[in-house]
Amino acid sequence: MTSIRQTIENRPWVGWLLFLLTVGIVFLLGLLASSIVERRAETTAIAVPEGKFDAFEAVNEEFKDYYPREYQSWLQTADTGFRSMYGGNAMRDMLEEDPRLVVLWAGYAFSKDYSQGRGHSYAVTDIRNSLRTAAPMTPEDGPMPGTCWSCKSPDVPRMMAEIGPEAFYSKKWAALGHEVTNSIGCADCHDPATMNLRISRPGLVEAFERRGEDITKVSHQQMRSLVCAQCHVEYYFKGEGKYLTFPWDKGFTVEQMEEYYDSYAFSDWTHAISKAPMLKAQHPDYELYTMGIHARRDVACADCHMPYKSEGSQKFTDHHIQSPLNNIANSCQVCHREETEEIVASVYAHQQRVVETRIQAEDVIVKAHIEAGAAWEAGATETEMAPVLQLIRQAQWRWDYAAASHGAAFHAPVETLRVLSGAIARGQEARVELSRILSKYGKGLVAMPDISTKEKAQQYIGLDMPKLRAEKDEFLKTIVPEWIRQYESKGAEKSEPVAAQ
Amino acid sequence: MTSIRQTIENRPWVGWLLFLLTVGIVFLLGLLASSIVERRAETTAIAVPEGKFDAFEAVNEEFKDYYPREYQSWLQTADTGFRSMYGGNAMRDMLEEDPRLVVLWAGYAFSKDYSQGRGHSYAVTDIRNSLRTAAPMTPEDGPMPGTCWSCKSPDVPRMMAEIGPEAFYSKKWAALGHEVTNSIGCADCHDPATMNLRISRPGLVEAFERRGEDITKVSHQQMRSLVCAQCHVEYYFKGEGKYLTFPWDKGFTVEQMEEYYDSYAFSDWTHAISKAPMLKAQHPDYELYTMGIHARRDVACADCHMPYKSEGSQKFTDHHIQSPLNNIANSCQVCHREETEEIVASVYAHQQRVVETRIQAEDVIVKAHIEAGAAWEAGATETEMAPVLQLIRQAQWRWDYAAASHGAAFHAPVETLRVLSGAIARGQEARVELSRILSKYGKGLVAMPDISTKEKAQQYIGLDMPKLRAEKDEFLKTIVPEWIRQYESKGAEKSEPVAAQ
Repeated sequence: MTSIRQTIENRPWVGWLLFLLTVGIVFLLGLLASSIVERRAETTAIAVPEGKFDAFEAVNEEFKDYYPREYQSWLQTADTGFRSMYGGNAMRDMLEEDPRLVVLWAGYAFSKDYSQGRGHSYAVTDIRNSLRTAAPMTPEDGPMPGTCWSCKSPDVPRMMAEIGPEAFYSKKWAALGHEVTNSIGCADCHDPATMNLRISRPGLVEAFERRGEDITKVSHQQMRSLVCAQCHVEYYFKGEGKYLTFPWDKGFTVEQMEEYYDSYAFSDWTHAISKAPMLKAQHPDYELYTMGIHARRDVACADCHMPYKSEGSQKFTDHHIQSPLNNIANSCQVCHREETEEIVASVYAHQQRVVETRIQAEDVIVKAHIEAGAAWEAGATETEMAPVLQLIRQAQWRWDYAAASHGAAFHAPVETLRVLSGAIARGQEARVELSRILSKYGKGLVAMPDISTKEKAQQYIGLDMPKLRAEKDEFLKTIVPEWIRQYESKGAEKSEPVAAQ
Repeated sequence: MTSIRQTIENRPWVGWLLFLLTVGIVFLLGLLASSIVERRAETTAIAVPEGKFDAFEAVNEEFKDYYPREYQSWLQTADTGFRSMYGGNAMRDMLEEDPRLVVLWAGYAFSKDYSQGRGHSYAVTDIRNSLRTAAPMTPEDGPMPGTCWSCKSPDVPRMMAEIGPEAFYSKKWAALGHEVTNSIGCADCHDPATMNLRISRPGLVEAFERRGEDITKVSHQQMRSLVCAQCHVEYYFKGEGKYLTFPWDKGFTVEQMEEYYDSYAFSDWTHAISKAPMLKAQHPDYELYTMGIHARRDVACADCHMPYKSEGSQKFTDHHIQSPLNNIANSCQVCHREETEEIVASVYAHQQRVVETRIQAEDVIVKAHIEAGAAWEAGATETEMAPVLQLIRQAQWRWDYAAASHGAAFHAPVETLRVLSGAIARGQEARVELSRILSKYGKGLVAMPDISTKEKAQQYIGLDMPKLRAEKDEFLKTIVPEWIRQYESKGAEKSEPVAAQ
């Protein structure tokens, strides 16, 4: 038997074959290893000269040359095209799609105007345009406090650093119009000096503190969700100073937050029809996200909404923040091996079930408000109505917690449906009680008004929409241009005002 | 520069190194390839002599020597220990755990006795023991038809082959007691002649036919669920002949099956308190499974409930059919890389939310029955009550569809909660209406009875439990031993009767 060495000496091609085989295999292993570590790769940014930016540089354009890919993708938040079971693109008028909302929010500004938010790029434009902020003609005018600007712009941390959060919140919204100009961008989530992720808003830091947690100790992966949780959370305006506060002291669930609000006897408004002391849920996106499977598996907001992207040899975080359904290859399919169509179908299957249940809850609560209104008219007493109004408050809080949370049907469909079940049970319980009260005062079935369109519903609750719109138009024609002029006159270096879009 | 060949010739160890490296890498690749194909491995069974078994061999023990691993693991279905959020082991008395069930089923046999099923090994014992089958002292006696045996034994296909399904179903339950003796086993899912998977029950085949589908054309992977779907489904006893029928003609959802039942004006019983025409859901396990993510991903029942198992060099399907939570390493962790504790916690998180919502639905429907009873007593008319009774029927059908389905909170939590929301909405709607009717007849709040224990609830609905139990004891002492004696006397070759366990 010849030894391998002899074989190689006799037939040199055998040695070469072995060698080439080794090379080939090692090359493939290299590919494998590269693909494993690939996702850790980070882009090399162009170095920013030390001291170039102070900690509150608010002008997004300033970062353009140093982080070109992040900046260019961030610009795309102007494209709000999104894939959803509703189809469609751009701004959706939710009151038109679902006029029940008008009745549910009767007596509250949301009944005037509620549209699905567009991309971050429109944050400043859309809050100026909204009928909810009305038409303040002087800096001391208008229904809204400075707090309403809190999430709209990197000018907010800049201003808070200048005048302090208390002063910021307690001013009128119109008093800050000439200062808050750059739309949501770089300095909202990054420290301009280092570009590290940074919590720029006091609300989240304070909520952590009250829970005995230290937000400076969290991991980078947690920060990739917490920068979003500065704004995508449930919050309220506390006290006279309208201090932006997260109701997180007892926990994140709908019951724990309700307990928090109840302990303050807090209500956002008194319902115009039922007189119930209402809570308006903002958008408990982060809270519900924590109750879903993706959070359980430590998937951060940015993993799906800002996935990694390659351009040539550069890998970077896509700053076109959007629905992952717009970008399934880079988001879902990094982990899930299903076909795009199947992934979409899976998501819609959950959304459809949640939407059906949400509408069921709305039908119930609308009826409860209207029947409560009829009971008051029939002569019901405060004592008789008190338990009913509590049930209506509880029902609508549950519905709104589920309905207002962006992506709830995806992030945590099981918890969302549990919450909606509670809304239906309590709303109907109020109606059982109302049925008894109405009978006592000789009333039978309460006729339901025609609220089949936004216009009819707004007319039913007594809104003078032409007047509100005319006032807004005047405000947009006179006040907003003046705000922009004032901002621009402060210096050419802060030259990225948002024109009307 | 020296060539590689020269290098190898000068320093032989370099050649050896390259060679050994190749060997090592190829070995590792072999391991990888093996692990990839490993899951396709199938066990080699000991060949069964041709003609050894006929197509309806019902005695499980007969297969022992040919399929020792499958047989031994099947024997373990006598161990019903299971991991669940309830903890515990063995048989759970559901009426004791949740006495609301007694009221929900008032007038129906389930109010007498309803326990969580034990392993397949107990199927025959437990149906003999159940108070639901009562105490027939002659073959023509008793409340239940032969149909009740349908899922309990491989003696069923044997008998159906002998006398035909119509005759089997339309006999009295007691008339078949001496024939149905072997507990659920081999021939229920396998053709004894070939051991191929086989649909042995006509109900499923007929349901497929009525849907225009051919069950003989399905894939092996589908069969790994469909053999379970012979029994783990919603079904009813159709017409005078008590013909076992799946209500699948319009689809699998709670609404589609309701439409099917409504189209026949079918009801299982009239509720003893509310007089509502009720539907009893059996266990729509397969139906709800098809609406969950595991079915979407083509995971079959057997993949989790009968995962592959290795013993030495043999790989086989574990026939200890049980909760996958008992066997996480072989079931869940084949696909899911999470730690056991985390997997369990994820499952419980869904179960807890579903159970909470289920209990909420029960509370509502119990009240509706009792308030309806009070309305009848107060003098309400058939016309007034008709819409209320329909709502109660719809509510309880939804609740029962979700509650009776084994593993619903795992298989399809989102659909389950959608269904339960519908139950709550309709149950409460009935109560809104009842509130009006009761007021009309001068009744205020209806006092709720004390149903805090099974005993109190059974007393409330007027069951004479000591009498029922005494009759059952007599039946078990006299009739069942006679059934076993008759079976044994038919021949030693059919010698695996089930003794009392």
